[in-house]
Amino acid sequence: MAFDAIETPFGKVDKIVGGSATYVGYAASNFVTPIQQVSIVGYDFPKEEMDEMKKRGMQLEGVEIVPDKKSFFWSGKYHLDMNTRDTLITDLNVLADFNPVIPDSYQGAEFLMLGNLSPNIQSSVIEQLKVRPKLIVMDTMNFWMDIALDDLKKVLKKIDVLLVNDSEARQLSEEISLVKAARKILAMGPKFLIIKKGEHGALLFHENHVFCAPALPLEEVFDPTGAGDTFAGGFIGHLAKTKDISFENMKTAIIVGSAMASFCVEKFGPERLKEITKKDIDARLQEFVSLAEFELDLV
Amino acid sequence: MAFDAIETPFGKVDKIVGGSATYVGYAASNFVTPIQQVSIVGYDFPKEEMDEMKKRGMQLEGVEIVPDKKSFFWSGKYHLDMNTRDTLITDLNVLADFNPVIPDSYQGAEFLMLGNLSPNIQSSVIEQLKVRPKLIVMDTMNFWMDIALDDLKKVLKKIDVLLVNDSEARQLSEEISLVKAARKILAMGPKFLIIKKGEHGALLFHENHVFCAPALPLEEVFDPTGAGDTFAGGFIGHLAKTKDISFENMKTAIIVGSAMASFCVEKFGPERLKEITKKDIDARLQEFVSLAEFELDLV
Repeated sequence: MAFDAIETPFGKVDKIVGGSATYVGYAASNFVTPIQQVSIVGYDFPKEEMDEMKKRGMQLEGVEIVPDKKSFFWSGKYHLDMNTRDTLITDLNVLADFNPVIPDSYQGAEFLMLGNLSPNIQSSVIEQLKVRPKLIVMDTMNFWMDIALDDLKKVLKKIDVLLVNDSEARQLSEEISLVKAARKILAMGPKFLIIKKGEHGALLFHENHVFCAPALPLEEVFDPTGAGDTFAGGFIGHLAKTKDISFENMKTAIIVGSAMASFCVEKFGPERLKEITKKDIDARLQEFVSLAEFELDLV
Repeated sequence: MAFDAIETPFGKVDKIVGGSATYVGYAASNFVTPIQQVSIVGYDFPKEEMDEMKKRGMQLEGVEIVPDKKSFFWSGKYHLDMNTRDTLITDLNVLADFNPVIPDSYQGAEFLMLGNLSPNIQSSVIEQLKVRPKLIVMDTMNFWMDIALDDLKKVLKKIDVLLVNDSEARQLSEEISLVKAARKILAMGPKFLIIKKGEHGALLFHENHVFCAPALPLEEVFDPTGAGDTFAGGFIGHLAKTKDISFENMKTAIIVGSAMASFCVEKFGPERLKEITKKDIDARLQEFVSLAEFELDLV
């Protein structure tokens, strides 16, 4: 839970609420509650945002509030094609000392989403849970592959689903072909691998199966910040709601995640996620069905 | 109908049969015959290849054989990622004087596939047909947008389906968003637009509808040469077989085209296309169904 400053070809905001846990929480709470947040913020994180989160079924007992420090702050600028961005500022602030403590009330959680953070912190959260969750989903990024690859590989052995983008999958596996990359990554520990390809959708790999999820072609991507976390929130939210972690249901969960991400990019930060209703979500899901369905008679 | 020399990270061939019409013909003849080829070759084009084509239901009356010149020759080298290539040699040879004459026996053709060539030659073929075909599909490339944009725009008014890749769609429309690009291109004439995205599949646009076709994630792409033409051949082959040019059936046709293209890249040139059976095609189509299908209950 943090602050971002974002500049896109369509406008800029100087300070807006962001952070993985924020996006995951806003997305997932459409499908299941309670969402038990684990995070750290400073004295500057708005009480109104926390109230809004609670109203939506997020529990914040696991969110440490540091009274004399500021929240994490990231500032970035997107290029014209919106696929690449430059990081302008990264102020770790409270995140420099983040050492999450899982509250007793969170014990027994069945679905765990580990946002992108240092592998050691991700690992510490898993270790603190007395009963292993039914499903552990983990996000990471190239930064941790560069500076903490060994630690990252240790966490990979403890999780069920890994989320990365295509270039990260190639970096982690040292393979160009995504099929070969997936095979190598699945051998590192996770039973499921999701490769996010931005405007080209996502691939889900499991054993010898693969599912290709489309991305909705959008007229305008206003701000891509948080789209990956929102995808993760929709994905695990659907799984937690249905309590079904089969490959078949993960395919559906990826469509749900994609639909949530398609809302996220329509406005700055998590704004749009706070506006949408179940009816909006249903209509968007229906668009995904139309987008991908076809009939086939064999030759 | 031509010759190619191809170098990929997996090997090289000095001279192999190629050319748009060759790939389109080998792909489409799995679905419908006769295929009436219009092309030009030199004295060096192998008689055995022509015999093979005839055996598969391709008629070659519209293929001019120039006795004192060589066939078109292209030589290229693919980069490691196989998505980009350098052209090493382009010897126009017979193609420099290509002025196709449609044989009387071809009159009445219901489905016309215009391979990538100068817009004026594409236009001349349309003009020579006394009865307008039920469906005209056209391929083109950035080269013609660079040097013959006005001519290209004139042909666009006469056709039904345009095939381009994503960067060509952006160049033709001067739009970054593919949704906006599609709207502009559809306003230029074609009723349907297919945007090919290589390993990311393809998009079909028609009025306000869009269909997103997946590409089969492949372990190895051995040689991408001809994949686009093979896609086109499978696409129009399915439409000609079913004689149904609705949006719904075009979605299926794109899957058929994608399946054929996925075979094409498995070996050099059109080699693999000559080996496969209807059973192979059916099995590959079934893979596309598994790849893309998901179930969804609304929220």
